[in-house]
Amino acid sequence: MIGKLLVANRGEIAVRIIRAAKDLGIATVAVHSAADADALHVQLADEAVAIGPPAPKKSYLSIPALLKAAADTGCDSVHPGYGFLAENAEFSDAVTAAGLVFVGPSGDAIRLMGDKVSAREAAARAGVPVVPGSKGRVEGIEAAREVLAETGFPVMIKAAAGGGGRGIRIANSQAEFDQAFPQAEAEALAAFGDGGLYMEKVIGRARHIEVQVLADGRDAIHCFERECSLQRRRQKVWEEAPSRALSPALREELCASAVALAKAVNYSGAGTVEYLYDDAADRFYFIEMNTRIQVEHPVTEAITGIDLVAEMLRIAGGEPLRLKQADVAVKGHAIEVRLNAEDPARDFAPFPGTVETLRIPGGPGVRFDSMLYPGYGVPPFYDSLLAKLIVHGETREAAIDRLVRALRETEIGGLKTTKPLFLALAADPAVRAGDVHTRWLEGWLTDNAAALGA
Amino acid sequence: MIGKLLVANRGEIAVRIIRAAKDLGIATVAVHSAADADALHVQLADEAVAIGPPAPKKSYLSIPALLKAAADTGCDSVHPGYGFLAENAEFSDAVTAAGLVFVGPSGDAIRLMGDKVSAREAAARAGVPVVPGSKGRVEGIEAAREVLAETGFPVMIKAAAGGGGRGIRIANSQAEFDQAFPQAEAEALAAFGDGGLYMEKVIGRARHIEVQVLADGRDAIHCFERECSLQRRRQKVWEEAPSRALSPALREELCASAVALAKAVNYSGAGTVEYLYDDAADRFYFIEMNTRIQVEHPVTEAITGIDLVAEMLRIAGGEPLRLKQADVAVKGHAIEVRLNAEDPARDFAPFPGTVETLRIPGGPGVRFDSMLYPGYGVPPFYDSLLAKLIVHGETREAAIDRLVRALRETEIGGLKTTKPLFLALAADPAVRAGDVHTRWLEGWLTDNAAALGA
Repeated sequence: MIGKLLVANRGEIAVRIIRAAKDLGIATVAVHSAADADALHVQLADEAVAIGPPAPKKSYLSIPALLKAAADTGCDSVHPGYGFLAENAEFSDAVTAAGLVFVGPSGDAIRLMGDKVSAREAAARAGVPVVPGSKGRVEGIEAAREVLAETGFPVMIKAAAGGGGRGIRIANSQAEFDQAFPQAEAEALAAFGDGGLYMEKVIGRARHIEVQVLADGRDAIHCFERECSLQRRRQKVWEEAPSRALSPALREELCASAVALAKAVNYSGAGTVEYLYDDAADRFYFIEMNTRIQVEHPVTEAITGIDLVAEMLRIAGGEPLRLKQADVAVKGHAIEVRLNAEDPARDFAPFPGTVETLRIPGGPGVRFDSMLYPGYGVPPFYDSLLAKLIVHGETREAAIDRLVRALRETEIGGLKTTKPLFLALAADPAVRAGDVHTRWLEGWLTDNAAALGA
Repeated sequence: MIGKLLVANRGEIAVRIIRAAKDLGIATVAVHSAADADALHVQLADEAVAIGPPAPKKSYLSIPALLKAAADTGCDSVHPGYGFLAENAEFSDAVTAAGLVFVGPSGDAIRLMGDKVSAREAAARAGVPVVPGSKGRVEGIEAAREVLAETGFPVMIKAAAGGGGRGIRIANSQAEFDQAFPQAEAEALAAFGDGGLYMEKVIGRARHIEVQVLADGRDAIHCFERECSLQRRRQKVWEEAPSRALSPALREELCASAVALAKAVNYSGAGTVEYLYDDAADRFYFIEMNTRIQVEHPVTEAITGIDLVAEMLRIAGGEPLRLKQADVAVKGHAIEVRLNAEDPARDFAPFPGTVETLRIPGGPGVRFDSMLYPGYGVPPFYDSLLAKLIVHGETREAAIDRLVRALRETEIGGLKTTKPLFLALAADPAVRAGDVHTRWLEGWLTDNAAALGA
């Protein structure tokens, strides 16, 4: 069992991890940059270590600084949280090499799932549906035409050596494809010294549905799905569980596929298998696996009653999975919204500042995960997440009603936040009906920018 | 269905009721004395009405002031909360006579259960075990000896015309009884002009266990039990659910008896049937029925997932019981502690003052029901309850661990509170083992007064 944990993160997730550790009787050590000396996670931990200046590269992303903090305080384990080094295979390896327990999967598992091609291959081997496309590189236009028979249009053509969205073209027809393919080849060769291309079907209108898994390296279970279709610039802003889009049969198939993948790679810890669900075609496709705890994990906790961070700590401490699949049942419906320090009336411009007053919502079915306190100065160096408001109700309708009530109760004085966005979304008929997809919010924002000025 | 609700109370329960009403889309009107103009319940309600000076008799206990507030704001219903007029039959009658819905039972039901003798008779008729004793008055020492055969010793002799603990004697043996009975007769005659006596077995070492019921005037269900054995001066300070003292068979019997009583009196609303459980003899006895929502209702909400206040509002609005008994299941264990503005190091002297800083605990399984906010001045006119901290865990042990963590997170700066009491209790082996009874805490406090100075 883990005895003393270094929490290698900041903000609400550091607070969340400290709470779980304390619930289990594990001693906690916070780390903080110079910008976070007064942060709540520092206040709540048993000990705190300054690890560097505000710049993340020199503090929260510095593996040597983190390992030194762990060594200096006698920690036997490290929880990476999300973001920062949470999916950095070298960090997992370095923690393990230092003789400490990494609360998460091995470096190899992180590498396998962190590479899009190898993750896709692992999923396909485990029988998980992947987005139709080429199996690795496409050599020449003749091979490309064979792939096209599988993908149809629109299809994405991508430089195999590219990354970060560079070198991507979309072809909507055969004519466009015939023109685009040689251009893309030439461009890739010029840009990367490698003309290799990769093709994938474009899933146009789809929902984002993901399955939470827990695994101990031998066995794996799922904790059902979350739907996170409401996204802005590919960032989730509103997450819920369960998804109202799935039939019971499809839910079972989807969740079983996530478990199959986790088992196939001998996964250990908490992980999330992400899918696109094309509800018109009633088909789902693997996108990627996140090898860490996710921001939106509390909606799963609300509907299942499972403390996912506590389970991560138990698994990392060497306990076999305590839960059998039959122990995991869903009750009610939960929604999380991300209250960010952003001004929705000004295209979500960041709004760092000081929390002058704070009213935290409460009552049954309301959870508020945050690092805020009155007088807290939100540093400008990190992400803008201030708080996650999680509501739980008997039905999706009741959960939305409770969300509205709890949002109205919430007051974060002195800062602009995304609260008006969620009040407006909760009143929108399409959101009420659950009739959304991953590109829905961008369109809605274009149409409703004025309403968010209120 | 109810459309607009007058919340005829203050403090955390007013906040609680407003939250439930808002979750259901019911408009809310707060009332407040001059001392509560800045109170949280006033801030959270849709409207607020000043009803009088700080003295409760002229504000929260004034039926005319409350009815006028309801009329002036167009309310169609009144929720009395707990305390104040919550178990005042005249208030229920007056609200109904004014053409409004009283969120609670009829005046007749309140009267029936509010009178100790009639409540005891109703329980006995419904087959609920009552504390052995005389059926009404005992006429003379010969009749008394017959009652003794049923009660044994110790036995309580009480003036039938007395009240509020006056005229009570305890006899531990036949000799004591033979001496005490004629003395008690003479004293009762002298004190009340009525020598009539009443006898009841003294249940020495017992647990306080109570069953939550929900009823709609026709049907009734239970939501399992709470144990509230940790009491100081007959005030509950720590409540939990379920009770660890009950076997499954006894739990079923106890809960069934509460439902039988509720059905027998055509009860409507939320109610609590209270029992003493003598665990040495494995017998339980009816004490009384509380015809209102109780302070400790959230532990039941935590383990069952039922929003009891919302159910009260639905029932009062005319809906039949939505839940069947089979819908009510227990998950995990919950504990509530009452954070009072009292100094445990100085015999729990009241400690009104201003909340200078406030840190509300959070995370999974933690609920904090309170009217506090930073800068709030706790008025000296009302009860000392500041906040209820409710924790929920998989097991009783996990719930206690989480309680400790959440208590340590909680900071109510500027006031002395009962927090040190609960940290000490949570560390006590008898509390950890659940090996307590209703008089246990008084003895513990005598032995541990010094520890609470910390």
